[in-house]
Amino acid sequence: MADLPVTFDDVQRAAAEIGDHVMRTPTVPASALTDLAPAALFLKLENLQPTASFKVRGACNRLAALTSDERKRGVIALSAGNHAQGVAYHARRLGVPATIVMPRFTPFNKVAKTEAMGAEVVLIGDNLDDARGYVAERVAKDGLVLVHPFDDPLIVAGQGTVALEMLADVPDLDMLVVPIGGGGLIGGIAIAAKALKPDITIIGAEAALYPSMGDALAGREAHYEGATIADGIAVKRPGDLNRQIAAALVDDVLQIEEVDFERAVNRLLADQKLMVEGAGAAGIAAIMTRPDLFEGARVGTVLCGGNIDPRVLSSVLMRGLARKGQMVRLRIGILDAPGALGRITGVIGESGGNIIDVYHLRLLSDLPIKRAEIDVIVETRDLPHVQRIVDALNNAGFEARLQTSVSG
Amino acid sequence: MADLPVTFDDVQRAAAEIGDHVMRTPTVPASALTDLAPAALFLKLENLQPTASFKVRGACNRLAALTSDERKRGVIALSAGNHAQGVAYHARRLGVPATIVMPRFTPFNKVAKTEAMGAEVVLIGDNLDDARGYVAERVAKDGLVLVHPFDDPLIVAGQGTVALEMLADVPDLDMLVVPIGGGGLIGGIAIAAKALKPDITIIGAEAALYPSMGDALAGREAHYEGATIADGIAVKRPGDLNRQIAAALVDDVLQIEEVDFERAVNRLLADQKLMVEGAGAAGIAAIMTRPDLFEGARVGTVLCGGNIDPRVLSSVLMRGLARKGQMVRLRIGILDAPGALGRITGVIGESGGNIIDVYHLRLLSDLPIKRAEIDVIVETRDLPHVQRIVDALNNAGFEARLQTSVSG
Repeated sequence: MADLPVTFDDVQRAAAEIGDHVMRTPTVPASALTDLAPAALFLKLENLQPTASFKVRGACNRLAALTSDERKRGVIALSAGNHAQGVAYHARRLGVPATIVMPRFTPFNKVAKTEAMGAEVVLIGDNLDDARGYVAERVAKDGLVLVHPFDDPLIVAGQGTVALEMLADVPDLDMLVVPIGGGGLIGGIAIAAKALKPDITIIGAEAALYPSMGDALAGREAHYEGATIADGIAVKRPGDLNRQIAAALVDDVLQIEEVDFERAVNRLLADQKLMVEGAGAAGIAAIMTRPDLFEGARVGTVLCGGNIDPRVLSSVLMRGLARKGQMVRLRIGILDAPGALGRITGVIGESGGNIIDVYHLRLLSDLPIKRAEIDVIVETRDLPHVQRIVDALNNAGFEARLQTSVSG
Repeated sequence: MADLPVTFDDVQRAAAEIGDHVMRTPTVPASALTDLAPAALFLKLENLQPTASFKVRGACNRLAALTSDERKRGVIALSAGNHAQGVAYHARRLGVPATIVMPRFTPFNKVAKTEAMGAEVVLIGDNLDDARGYVAERVAKDGLVLVHPFDDPLIVAGQGTVALEMLADVPDLDMLVVPIGGGGLIGGIAIAAKALKPDITIIGAEAALYPSMGDALAGREAHYEGATIADGIAVKRPGDLNRQIAAALVDDVLQIEEVDFERAVNRLLADQKLMVEGAGAAGIAAIMTRPDLFEGARVGTVLCGGNIDPRVLSSVLMRGLARKGQMVRLRIGILDAPGALGRITGVIGESGGNIIDVYHLRLLSDLPIKRAEIDVIVETRDLPHVQRIVDALNNAGFEARLQTSVSG
C-alpha cells in the first residue's frame, strides 16, 4: 500500500486533527433489521452529524491545512449537497469566508441551509458542469481555494476516520459495505480498514444509474444520466485518487437499483427509526439484494447521510405501506347514481377495510357523462386482504382496480 | 430513599439480569438541535431497540423472575402498544407463551407486529378499560401471570437501567428530562440517577391532555380524554409505586401541548434524522417550550419510543414544511373560463414559486356554477415569499387564500 496516494498515517493524522471538531458517531447493531441477511449487521450513524453527513470529516481536515493567507482569501466549493454544508460548517467555525456554487434550480431548502451556515451561495448554470467555469474564474481572480468534494488526499484521509471509529467500536467486523459516489469515503475507509485488519472485505455500493466507479475499475467508459433517489452518489466520474485506491483495496462493487434504494430507506425509517437519504441507504440496499454475499459475517455499513427531501420521504413511507398491502388505492367505476358511494363504503367496511380518504375523479377523467370513477384509499391488513376487498366490490357489481400508488 | 418501593440495588440487579438480552443504546449529543436551548443536549436512543422502545427493559427483568411453573402457564398483558411488543419479544426468547389483549379497533399493523413476535393477540372491547375483565378472568382461570406495564417494582427497576447507561456515557449530566405515562420510566430513572448523583435534576414531561402524574402529585383528580399524538403516554392513572417515587425524587413535571409534540417530532426527524413517536419527543418538546429552565445545563433526554404511524409521520413532515412557509396550499377563486389555470400558474412561476400539485375543487364545493376554486400546492422559500405570491395573484385579479394544511 506504500505507493497509494493516501496512507494510514494520513488517516491517523486526520483523526487527531478533526477529533475535537467532528462528532464521534456511534456504531450500533441493526437490531430491527435482523431478517435482512444471515449476518450480524452494524450501522455507523453518520446521519447524526450536525450537517447530517460524513462530509464534515474531510472538509474539516482540508480546511485545517489552509495557510493563514488562504484563510483570509477564503474557500470555494461546487456542490448542491452535503459537501456544501460540510465546507460551510467548518468555514464558519474557522472564520474563513466560504463561497458555495450551486446550479440555479437547486431546491430552496438546500440553498437556505447553506446560507444559514454563513456561506455565500452563488446560483449559476443549469447543472454542476455548467458552473465549473465560474469556479475556475473565482479561483484565478480572487485566489479562493477550491475544496474538491472527493479528489483530494486530505479529504480522503478525513473520510477514512469513519473506519477507525467503526473498528474501535466493533473490532471483529469481517466486512464493510460503503456507498460510492466520487469514492472519497470508500477510499479513506479502505486505506484505514485494510491497514488495521488486512483480511477485512470492502464492498462498494453505487447507484445502478451512475455506476461510474464499477465501470472505471472494469476499464469501461459510459455516459450516465437520469434522476436518482441516491443523488448524493450520482457522480459521473470518480476521483482519480479514489479509483487508484479502489483498484488496489476494494473487493467488489455492487450496483443498486432505484427500487432497492427506496426499500432500504423505508426499512431503515419504518423499522430501525433512522432517517437516511437514498445514498445513505446504499449499504443496506446492497445487503437486502445480495444477502448471500454476507452469510455468517459481521458486517458494518455507513449510513453516510440523512438529507432527504421531506416530500420524497413522505412518498417513500406511503409506497412502503402500499407494497405491503397495508394501504391501497382502489379505483372504482360507478354509474353516477345516488347511493353508489354509500354502497361502496359499506362493502369495504364489511370486508374489514378502513377507509382513509375518498377522491372523486369525475371531472379529471375522460369518461362519458353519467359514468364516474372514484378513488378510495383503504387501510388494509395485507395483500390477501386487499384481494378479498376487490372481490367483494366486484361481486357487488362495482368494477374495482388496485392502483400502484397511494399518493395523491 | 430507603423507604421507596424500588432501590438502587434493584436497578443494578436489573442491569445485570438484562445486560445480555437488551440493546445497550448510545447516548449522543443532539448536534442538529443546538438552537433549541442555551444548553448542551444529549439524546438516549431507546428508539433503536429491537421493538423501538425502552419497554423491552422492564419486560425482560420481569419475565426473568418467573418461576418455572409460571413460565409454563404463560404471561398476559393488556396493551396495544410498546409494552405489548416488549413482553412478546422476551416471551418468545424465553419460550414463554404470551397472550396480549388489545381493544378491538387497534390498528392492523400493531396487531401484526405483536403476532409476528409469536404472541397470541386477543381483540376485545372498545378500549383498554373494557378488556380488564377478560384479563382478570384469564389470570384466575388459566393461571397466566399478568405483566403490568408500569406498576411493578421489577418493571420500574428494569426501566431504571436507562439512567445507568446515560450516566456511564455522559457522567456530567446536570438534568434529565423524561416522558411520563404511567411513570415506570421516570420512576426507575429517578431512583438510579439520584443514587449515582444526588444533585441531578429530574424533570418529567407529560401530555397536557393526560396530566395524570402532575395532578396526582398536586393532589388533584380529574377525568382525561381525547386523541393525542403522544398515545404512548396517554395514561389516566399513574402507577401507585411511581407516584410515590415521583413525589420523593422528581423535581418538576411539565405539560406538553399537542402542537409542541408535533414540532418536536418534526425537528427530531427533519434535522436530527431520528424517528420518534409523539411520546418519544416529550423531552425535546419540554426543552423547546421552556428553554429558560435548562440554561447553561448539560441535559439528557430519553427518546423512549419510535413507533409512529407512517401516515401520521407523513402529515407531520408536510405540516412542518407548511409552518416554515416552505410548502403551502393556496386556494384560488376563478371564473371557470378557459385559460384561468394557465394564467395562475404563470403568475406563481414568475413570483418564484414551484408548483407541486393542483387540485380542482369545483365538484366538492358549494359554489355557484361557473365559479370554481382550485387548490395549488406550491414550494416556497419562506413566509415572506408566500405573501409575495399571494399579492401577485391578487394583483392579477385572482382571489387567493393561504390554507392551513398542505395535506390532501
